[in-house]
Parts: sequence; structure tokens; C-alpha cells
Amino acid sequence: MNFINKLSAAWTTNNSLLCVGLDPDLARFPAQLASEPDAIFLFCKEIIDATADLACSFKPQIAYFAALGAEGQLERICAYARQHYPHIPLILDAKRGDIGATARQYAREAFDRYGADAVTVNPYMGFDSVEPYMEWTDRGAIVLCRTSNPGGSDLQFLMADGKPLYQHVARMVADKWNRNGQCALVVGATFPEELAQVRAIVGEMPLLVPGVGAQGGDVEATVKSGRTAGGAGMMINSSRAILYATPQGSEDFAAAARRVALETRDAINLYR
Amino acid sequence: MNFINKLSAAWTTNNSLLCVGLDPDLARFPAQLASEPDAIFLFCKEIIDATADLACSFKPQIAYFAALGAEGQLERICAYARQHYPHIPLILDAKRGDIGATARQYAREAFDRYGADAVTVNPYMGFDSVEPYMEWTDRGAIVLCRTSNPGGSDLQFLMADGKPLYQHVARMVADKWNRNGQCALVVGATFPEELAQVRAIVGEMPLLVPGVGAQGGDVEATVKSGRTAGGAGMMINSSRAILYATPQGSEDFAAAARRVALETRDAINLYR
Repeated sequence: MNFINKLSAAWTTNNSLLCVGLDPDLARFPAQLASEPDAIFLFCKEIIDATADLACSFKPQIAYFAALGAEGQLERICAYARQHYPHIPLILDAKRGDIGATARQYAREAFDRYGADAVTVNPYMGFDSVEPYMEWTDRGAIVLCRTSNPGGSDLQFLMADGKPLYQHVARMVADKWNRNGQCALVVGATFPEELAQVRAIVGEMPLLVPGVGAQGGDVEATVKSGRTAGGAGMMINSSRAILYATPQGSEDFAAAARRVALETRDAINLYR
Repeated sequence: MNFINKLSAAWTTNNSLLCVGLDPDLARFPAQLASEPDAIFLFCKEIIDATADLACSFKPQIAYFAALGAEGQLERICAYARQHYPHIPLILDAKRGDIGATARQYAREAFDRYGADAVTVNPYMGFDSVEPYMEWTDRGAIVLCRTSNPGGSDLQFLMADGKPLYQHVARMVADKWNRNGQCALVVGATFPEELAQVRAIVGEMPLLVPGVGAQGGDVEATVKSGRTAGGAGMMINSSRAILYATPQGSEDFAAAARRVALETRDAINLYR
């Protein structure tokens, strides 16, 4: 089953558009994990187990592992998720972007080494920096389009032919890069009207939407702006609000994560 | 000594604008290394030793290590270069691009874990995706501007206010992002007239220029278009032409690498 089909099935099975982001920050870990040598693996495993029936995808952020030299724990987390929850798409958030021969190495990293169903990629270097990922025909490439960080507009809102750059990216991906139906887009939740514009451009293409939860995006506006006619089409990501739902030091971080994931999923579902 | 000063000193000491790129591809390694468990480290170590008096910088491409789970060997290569050739800037080619908190993790990866003097970064997410790197005040961020791959024009040549996007990036980095003099730009060698336009925009800012050697850029046009008034200002990268200078299987790959590096350095110096 390819990435898009697997995602569609997870939307239905778990009645969820929630993507659980895995950004493991040791400084915020519960006290009982602090002395464990594989604390990152254990923390993420508990989060995955606690939310697997509530999520449409899991999204580990590789930077948190790379900073600590913890790629081995990321390998184990990915293997665990694939083994125990093979029906939940696994997205490697790496935002890779490089030319052909090098992009192929990054594709091997994401798909062969970590076994991800999809990887986030950067469009700045153009189609041949994204095309190598398509050789893995059952996997996906999720292209950065519009990001909701303060500097997101520096480039993305430059106007070309009367339209901001991010709309050109959406159009390019929809019309040219998505030849085999393997693409999705990253569009932040902060600007719902822009989310709606991207949805109008790309039809049914899935959107990965960060910015709800700790980043403060409005759930109702996000869902109404980004959903497809069928009430799906989105992976709405929440990371820190779920991972660090309890005061630090309390033992029930996984139960708290489940509670927040459930609330977030249900809040999203109110507006589908 | 900070990155820019270190680079300036290396230009002078080695009379060289040549950046030696380290893209270790096991399939192209000499036969005698094939059975070594740390073949990647040994190969790169020999290349570094053979070219350290001819290069103004070394640039490992992290994708080649990440695909193989060989981050440990990359750590050893970086440590070796720092220890034995501390005056040669070490550039981690990672083209990272993510928002603030995540960018800080990538900065920790590049600067604390690998000890790089500079890291390549992607501008698509704007200034706050680059700013965290500046907290390491003696290190540098080398921002993608104009790339010479076939798809490079997909975004970079979109016209805004009558100018292509890559010129806006050059202007933004020169006027705003380079507050503390820590920035450089990536500009491909394939289009010398564009290299000249970027040079005119950014003054003395260093340019990392891939595309000479295996990628076929013209040395004379590249140097004349990209040099500063002082005849420097560039790191002209060559990777495969140096690394794989001999027919596969021959034993003298390091001597051949040295020969090609010397020829390339001298060819560049003809036009400074």
C-alpha cells in the first residue's frame, strides 16, 4: 500500500486527522527517564503506544536526534512503530533539499534506513531535488510550501506574477511534480486564508499542517480552511502540547499525552 | 578565530580557493578499502592528508554518511581534520532548514557534535530559520542562493519586482541576515554572469561555488566572475573529480587526488 492510500486508511480507521510529532527534548523529559541510557527511545515508544489509536501519522523530527548523536534510537523508534502500528504512516521530518545524486542519499536515509513512509523536503532547489524520492514508488515526499514561523514570509511572500511564492510552489507541485501521486505539502496553520488558497490550488492533495497546539493555531479555522470535500486531506500536527502535557517530573506523561491527543483529535473532528 | 577570518587566512596560507568536497561513495572506493569496516573514515582521512596544503576548506556532504548510518565515521573525520589541520575551515554540507527551536538542534549537530566551522543552510523558511546558527559567534552559515542543477531555476528564477528570486536572497542576506559577518552564500559555477551579479550585490562576502570539475563549470569564467577585488572571496568546490581521480581499483587514489587538487588549485590561480 502506498503512502497516500495508507494515510487515507488511517484517517478512516482512527477517525483522526491528528499527526503526533515526536520532538524528544531531554530537558523536558519526566524524571524517571532521566537516568535511562535509551531515554529517547523509551519516551517516544510510550507516546506512540498511548496515541496509536488516535493518530493518522507519527512524525519524528530528526534534528532532535541528530543533535545528540541518537540516530540509533531513531532507528529503533521507527522500527517499533512500523512493527506494531504498520497501518499508521511514519513521516520523517527532515526537510531535506539537495541535488540529484545527494538527494538520492537522503532518500536512502529516510526510506531504507528509517523505513519512513514519507519525508519532508525543501523545494528551493527545484524538481530534480525532489524527483529522486519518487523512485521509491510506495513512499511520499511532503514539500514545504507555506510555513508559519515569523520569517516564513521573507521568501514565501515575495510576489511573482501577482502571486506569492508559496502559491507558485503549490501550483508547481500540483501540476508538475506530483506525477505519480506521491506528493503532499506543508502549510502552516497560522494563516487559515492561505491554507484555503493552497487547498483550492491542489485539490485533494494531503496537507501536513503544523502550528496547532503549542504553536497556537486556531483549530476551527484550520480545519474549515484546509479540509477536502470529504472532510479529510490533512495531517494536523501537534508535538509539544502532547509530548509535554504534564508538569515535568510527574509519572503519567503517557496518560496525559493520550488525554491531550484525544482532546485534539476530537476538537478537530468537530469541524470536519 | 572566527570562520571568515580562518577562511581568509587559509586562502593566503595555501594560496588556494579550492574547497575539497568529501562525498564518500562506497561503490567508487578503491579495492583495498572495500573490506575495511571504517573504509569511509580511512578514505576521507587519506584525501584530507593528501590535499591539506592545497585546500582553503574541506566540505563533507552529510547525506553520504546518513544514508549508511555512518555518522560515527563522520565524527571521526571531523575530529581528525580539526586536530591535524585546525587552520583549514571545515564546512558541513547539510543544507538544513527549519524553524527556530529545531534549527537550534541542527546548529548543535553541526557545531557541537561535528565541530564544523560553518554549515550550509536553506533560506526558504526565512531569517529566523538561519538566526539560531549565529549564536555560535565564531561559526558561519552558508546560505543557498543560486544552484546550478537543472531544477535550480524552478524557484530561484521566479521574477519578483523585476529580479529573480536568488538575487532577492543575496540582497536579504547581505543587507539583513549578515548582521555579525557570519554569512556566506552558495552560488553555482554554471552561470558565470549570475555569479557576477551576486558578487556585485554582496561585496566581499565569501561564496561557496560548486560545479567546477565533475560538474563541468568553466574555471576561468567562474573565477573572473566571482572573485573579489583582492582576488579571493571564493571557495570553489570540487568533490568527485578529486576523490575518484583514478580508475577504480588502483592503489594510488590519494596521490591521484593530490595531483588533481593541485591542477585545480593552479588552474583557479591563473585567473585570480
